Amino acid sequence: MKDIEKEIMNFALKLAQSSPKNEIPVGCVIADSKGKIISYANNSTLKKNDPTAHAEIIAIRKACKKLKTSKLLDFSIFVTLEPCKMCEAAILQSGIKKVFFGAYSDYFRIFKEKKKNYDSENRGYQYYGGIKEKECSNLIRNFFKSKR
Amino acid sequence: MKDIEKEIMNFALKLAQSSPKNEIPVGCVIADSKGKIISYANNSTLKKNDPTAHAEIIAIRKACKKLKTSKLLDFSIFVTLEPCKMCEAAILQSGIKKVFFGAYSDYFRIFKEKKKNYDSENRGYQYYGGIKEKECSNLIRNFFKSKR
Repeated sequence: MKDIEKEIMNFALKLAQSSPKNEIPVGCVIADSKGKIISYANNSTLKKNDPTAHAEIIAIRKACKKLKTSKLLDFSIFVTLEPCKMCEAAILQSGIKKVFFGAYSDYFRIFKEKKKNYDSENRGYQYYGGIKEKECSNLIRNFFKSKR
Repeated sequence: MKDIEKEIMNFALKLAQSSPKNEIPVGCVIADSKGKIISYANNSTLKKNDPTAHAEIIAIRKACKKLKTSKLLDFSIFVTLEPCKMCEAAILQSGIKKVFFGAYSDYFRIFKEKKKNYDSENRGYQYYGGIKEKECSNLIRNFFKSKR
């Protein structure tokens, strides 16, 4: 992993840490192949009254709007939590080429068996999971603990 | 299938038929349990520069915005084409309880093996596929034929 990619992941984590109250704390950043940040977002399903307003979906929509395109070929997405099925499919639709994520989700488990792998696996993108895993998963875990 | 549900599906088909040029012709309607239409949309990925702007996603977002909620429990979604993985997951996220769709997709095949079934199948919603199948699938087929 490149230094610039680590920095971007740190930024995604900071976004997640500054999530609005009651929203599941997830941060997402989209960057171009040189590491230039194009868009970023928090999970905002409650604030926006929108069940599709996961951090990844918002970041993809923002990036496409900014670049006036419906395809994000040659871009990378950084997200603090393993994408859910909806977001994974949206990433695929968008044509994003690299997926970096932090915490593995016991619930989604799309990537569980490929831990810390970095491969295309016929998915249409390469991915790398478990980055800053402890910080990212503690954030989620503490959120749900506080809700119980 | 109730008469009101057939009528709503007809409306979804009309939406699909009036799709903007170059957009994959898909129409989607969300209605409450009494058949009152809450929102509707066309597929608009090109027009909106948004790879997530499938008809279902837009209709879900509109309905939630209108009703000021992030959950659509007790609502039904009517769509002229079998939902893709992204939309299927979004439907699940939204809590929608019934899914009616027209054409089966050879590409997605989420529901292919359950043709004309109507069951929850642990998906969290009931579904009914193949409604006005011929009209819905001809529309899609002719669109792609014209693109070749």
